[in-house]
Amino acid sequence: MPKKKIVKDSEVIMTELVLPNDTNPLNNLMGGRLMHWMDIVAAIAAQKHSNRIVVTAAADSISFQHPIALGNVVTLKARVTRAFNSSMEVFIDVTAEDIPANKKIKTHRAFFTFVAVDQNGRPIEVPEVEPSNPEEQELYDGALRRRQLRLVLAKRMNPHDAVELKSIFNLVDPQEEKK
Amino acid sequence: MPKKKIVKDSEVIMTELVLPNDTNPLNNLMGGRLMHWMDIVAAIAAQKHSNRIVVTAAADSISFQHPIALGNVVTLKARVTRAFNSSMEVFIDVTAEDIPANKKIKTHRAFFTFVAVDQNGRPIEVPEVEPSNPEEQELYDGALRRRQLRLVLAKRMNPHDAVELKSIFNLVDPQEEKK
Amino acid sequence: MPKKKIVKDSEVIMTELVLPNDTNPLNNLMGGRLMHWMDIVAAIAAQKHSNRIVVTAAADSISFQHPIALGNVVTLKARVTRAFNSSMEVFIDVTAEDIPANKKIKTHRAFFTFVAVDQNGRPIEVPEVEPSNPEEQELYDGALRRRQLRLVLAKRMNPHDAVELKSIFNLVDPQEEKK
Amino acid sequence: MPKKKIVKDSEVIMTELVLPNDTNPLNNLMGGRLMHWMDIVAAIAAQKHSNRIVVTAAADSISFQHPIALGNVVTLKARVTRAFNSSMEVFIDVTAEDIPANKKIKTHRAFFTFVAVDQNGRPIEVPEVEPSNPEEQELYDGALRRRQLRLVLAKRMNPHDAVELKSIFNLVDPQEEKK
Amino acid sequence: MPKKKIVKDSEVIMTELVLPNDTNPLNNLMGGRLMHWMDIVAAIAAQKHSNRIVVTAAADSISFQHPIALGNVVTLKARVTRAFNSSMEVFIDVTAEDIPANKKIKTHRAFFTFVAVDQNGRPIEVPEVEPSNPEEQELYDGALRRRQLRLVLAKRMNPHDAVELKSIFNLVDPQEEKK
Amino acid sequence: MPKKKIVKDSEVIMTELVLPNDTNPLNNLMGGRLMHWMDIVAAIAAQKHSNRIVVTAAADSISFQHPIALGNVVTLKARVTRAFNSSMEVFIDVTAEDIPANKKIKTHRAFFTFVAVDQNGRPIEVPEVEPSNPEEQELYDGALRRRQLRLVLAKRMNPHDAVELKSIFNLVDPQEEKK
Repeated sequence: MPKKKIVKDSEVIMTELVLPNDTNPLNNLMGGRLMHWMDIVAAIAAQKHSNRIVVTAAADSISFQHPIALGNVVTLKARVTRAFNSSMEVFIDVTAEDIPANKKIKTHRAFFTFVAVDQNGRPIEVPEVEPSNPEEQELYDGALRRRQLRLVLAKRMNPHDAVELKSIFNLVDPQEEKK
Repeated sequence: MPKKKIVKDSEVIMTELVLPNDTNPLNNLMGGRLMHWMDIVAAIAAQKHSNRIVVTAAADSISFQHPIALGNVVTLKARVTRAFNSSMEVFIDVTAEDIPANKKIKTHRAFFTFVAVDQNGRPIEVPEVEPSNPEEQELYDGALRRRQLRLVLAKRMNPHDAVELKSIFNLVDPQEEKK
Repeated sequence: MPKKKIVKDSEVIMTELVLPNDTNPLNNLMGGRLMHWMDIVAAIAAQKHSNRIVVTAAADSISFQHPIALGNVVTLKARVTRAFNSSMEVFIDVTAEDIPANKKIKTHRAFFTFVAVDQNGRPIEVPEVEPSNPEEQELYDGALRRRQLRLVLAKRMNPHDAVELKSIFNLVDPQEEKK
Repeated sequence: MPKKKIVKDSEVIMTELVLPNDTNPLNNLMGGRLMHWMDIVAAIAAQKHSNRIVVTAAADSISFQHPIALGNVVTLKARVTRAFNSSMEVFIDVTAEDIPANKKIKTHRAFFTFVAVDQNGRPIEVPEVEPSNPEEQELYDGALRRRQLRLVLAKRMNPHDAVELKSIFNLVDPQEEKK
Repeated sequence: MPKKKIVKDSEVIMTELVLPNDTNPLNNLMGGRLMHWMDIVAAIAAQKHSNRIVVTAAADSISFQHPIALGNVVTLKARVTRAFNSSMEVFIDVTAEDIPANKKIKTHRAFFTFVAVDQNGRPIEVPEVEPSNPEEQELYDGALRRRQLRLVLAKRMNPHDAVELKSIFNLVDPQEEKK
Repeated sequence: MPKKKIVKDSEVIMTELVLPNDTNPLNNLMGGRLMHWMDIVAAIAAQKHSNRIVVTAAADSISFQHPIALGNVVTLKARVTRAFNSSMEVFIDVTAEDIPANKKIKTHRAFFTFVAVDQNGRPIEVPEVEPSNPEEQELYDGALRRRQLRLVLAKRMNPHDAVELKSIFNLVDPQEEKK
C-alpha cells in the first residue's frame, strides 16, 4: 500500500437524471434522494483512495438552496480531501443542468466521512492524501477544522480542545487581542 | 390557521425493512439510504405541522456509529421541534431492531429543516410550536442554537452574532469569567 | 419465550408517501402497491409478536372503496389479533391524508395471516395473544370466525365444521328457531 | 362497443423473475410482492376486456402455500371471468418454475375485481363475458357466488339475500332435506 | 438432456405497464428500459431451452421507430431460434397497446444471444432447436447469417469467411454474375 | 445555435455501483441493466451536444465478454462522435472496477443513436461535430460506415448503396483487384 496518494486518484464523477419518483409535489428533486446519491459517489471515492470496503461515518450539514427540477441532469463530483488513520473526508460538489435551457448551476457542496474496514468490519489504516494544487490544499487544511466540529457535535471532543475549530467562528477572544 | 400547534400534532412514525439493495458489501444499511428515509419522514412531519407543501432546507450533520444489518427493522420517528416564520426544524430519532434476536438499539438522532411554500414555491408562514413536556422544551430551546450553527456554516450569519451558538462550545471566555 | 404477549407489543406503524410510480392513469394509488405495503407492515407485526422469521400464509379479501391520490400520506397500523399455534392473524388499518387539504380518511381494514418458522422454514409455536381492551377483545373473538372462513375457502375445512363461521352469515336455520 | 366479448380477448400473461429485493430472509418471494404483480396483470386483463381505465375494487382472499424461491420464474395468467355492469371479476393463476431444476408448480389461484371508469373516475358499463368452454363456464358460474361473498364480507349485502353463496358452504338445511 | 427441443418449449411472454419512471420528458418509454425488459424475457427463454443458468453474450442492433407512451401495455414475446453448441439466439418481438384507444402496434424485433453455463460460469452444451413451421424455419436459417455478422462485428471472424453473411447485403459480385 | 461543437462538449461520465437487484444467479451484472445505463448516459451526451430533448433511435450490436461482479463500480463514458442533420451517434465505453482487488478492465464499447426533437416530438437539426484529435477523428470517420450498416439492417438502405459499409467487411471484389 502506498503511503500517500494524490487527490486525483480518488476522483469520481456520477451523473443522474431526475426522474418522476425522485421529485416532490413541486416537481423538484427531494433532498433525501440527493443525499442518497452523495453517499454513493463519496463512498466510491473513499474506496478508490483506500482500496478497501468503506462505511459511512458522518455526513456534515448540508444546505439546500437551489431547487433541481424534474428532467434536470445532476452531476456529482467526489474526491478525498484528507485521511486520518482509517477515516477519510470526501468533498462532493453538485451541479444541476437544465440542458435544453442551457442553464447550469452549482447547487451543493458537501462533506462526508468514511472509515475503511476489513472483511470483519474492523477499521484499517489508509494512505495519506497529497494535495497537488491550492484548491486541494485549502480543502486539506480545512479538513482538520471540520473534523473537530464533527467530534464536538458528536460529543466526542471537548470544545476547549478544538483549537482549529475556533477559527471557523473567528472566535478570537477580544481580551487576548489586546494583549 | 392556528397560531400555535403542539409537538404531538406533527409526529410521524415510519418503519422500513432493510432489503438487499439497501446494503453495502458488509450487508449493512448504506448511510445514504437512511438519509433518504429521514428526509421523507421529516418532510411529512413538517407537512403535518404546516398543512403546506414543504421543501428540504437543510440537513444537520449526522454521525453513523451503529451498523444496521440486512433484515433489520428500522423505525424513524419525526416531529417538529420549533418553527421560525416559514421554516421548521424537525427532530428524527432512529431505532434499529433485529427482531428474531430481540435486540433493539437507538442508532441515530438527526435534525432537518424544511420551509413551507405555496404552490409557486414561495415561503409562507407556519404556526408556532408549543412544547408540552421537558423533552420537547429542551428540543425547542436547542433549536435556536442549532439554527445559528446552520446559518454560520452556510455563511449566512456572522459568527459574532451567533450568541446562542457559543454555548454549544462552552465558549466562555476565561478573562470574562474572572471579571 | 413468554406464554402470552399483549397486543401493544406487536404494534407497528408504517408511513408511505404516494409517488408517481405507485399510481394508475387517474393518479391514484394502485391496489397492488397498497397490498405490498400491507404485507410488509403486517409481517413486521408478526415478527414482533413471535420474535421469529415469518412467512405470509394468507391475505383475507380486501375491498378498495376510497381512491388515494398521488402525494397523499398513507399510514398503515398493524397488530397481531390472535395466535393459533404457529400462525398469527394480523389486523391492518389504513388511513390516507391529503395534508395540505387537511383531509384524513380511514380507507382500508385488512387481515393477513403469518406463520412463524425456524431457519429451515419449519413452523414453530408462538406466544398467545392477551387482549387488553374491548376493541382488542372483539378482534380476538372474530379471529376464530375469520380463520374458519379462510380454511373453508382454501378447502381445508368442511363447512359443516365451521361452527363459528355461520354467525358471520347469520345462518340461523329457521326450522331450528321454531324449536 | 361490443355487447359481449370472449374470455380469450382479455387474457394476459406476465412473467417475472424473483430478484433479491423481492425476497424474505428465507430467500423466498414475499407475499406482498406477488399481490402487487397480481394486481397489475389483472388490471391489464380488465383493461383489455373493457377498453377503459380500470381501478381495483377488491382482492379476494389468497392463500400462500408454496414458497417461491429467489431466481424462480413466476408466470401470472389473468383473464376476465364475468362482468357485472361496470365491474369485472378477473381470475389469475400463478405458476412458479425453477428452470435449471426443471420443476414447475401451480402456486396460486386468485380473484380480483375491477371497475371500469371514465376520465373523471365515474363507473361506466362494460361488455358481458361469453364463456367458450367448460372451464370458462365454471368460472363464469362461480363468479356470482364469489360476488355475493365479497358483498357480504364488505357488509354491502344481507347474508339472507346471498342465495348463491350458501352453496359454497353446502349450507343445505338438514330439516329441508328431510322434507 | 434431450438432443433437440422445439421452439414452443422456450416461448416466454412478458407484459409490462409503462410507468412514470420509465419515460423521457416526452412521456415515452426510454429505449434503455425496453432493452432491460428484452434482456430479461430473452434470458428466461434461453433458460427454458437449456434448463441452465444463462448469461447474455450479445444484443444485436435494435432500431427504435415507434414511440411507446406512458400507460401503454408492452408485450414481449421471446423464443430461441437456434442453438450453436453452448450459445442460443433468442428472437424477441414487442407489441405496444394503448388499450383504451384500442390501438396495438408491433414496435420492435430484436435478437439477443445467450450462453448456457454451469455453476462455475463455464459454457455447457445445449439441445439443438427443431423448427416446426415456416416462420420458425426462416428464423432458424437466418440465425447463421446473424451469427456471422455478430462475429465479424466483434472482430472474432474474418469477413471473407462469413459466407452466409454476404447474402444479407446481396453482395453478389457483378463479375461473377456475368460468368 | 453554434454550427459546430467539439466532442468534449458532450462528454458525460456516469458511475454506478452493481447492487444485488442488478445481478443474475452467478452474481454478475445482467446485460439488460447495463444497456439501460448506456441508454441514459448516451441520451445525456446527445442532449448536451444538441441542447434538445432527444429520443433513442438505435442501439448498435453489443457484445458481452467480461462478466461484471456484484459490488463492482461501473464507469460509463459517453460522447457524441458525429451528427447527421437531426441524428447523433454516441460512443459509450464502459470500465468495470473491483476496487478492493485493485482490478480495472475495459468491458464494453457501444454505439447508440439519438434524434433531437422539439416539444412535439418532431426532428430538429443539431450542430455538427468537430473532432479534435486522432481518436475522435477515427470515431467520426467510422460513424458513416456504422450509419450505413444501421440503415441496411433496418432495411432502410439498399446494400448496393452502402459504399462505406463494404469496407467493414473488406468486400473488395477479387476480380476488381486484378484489373
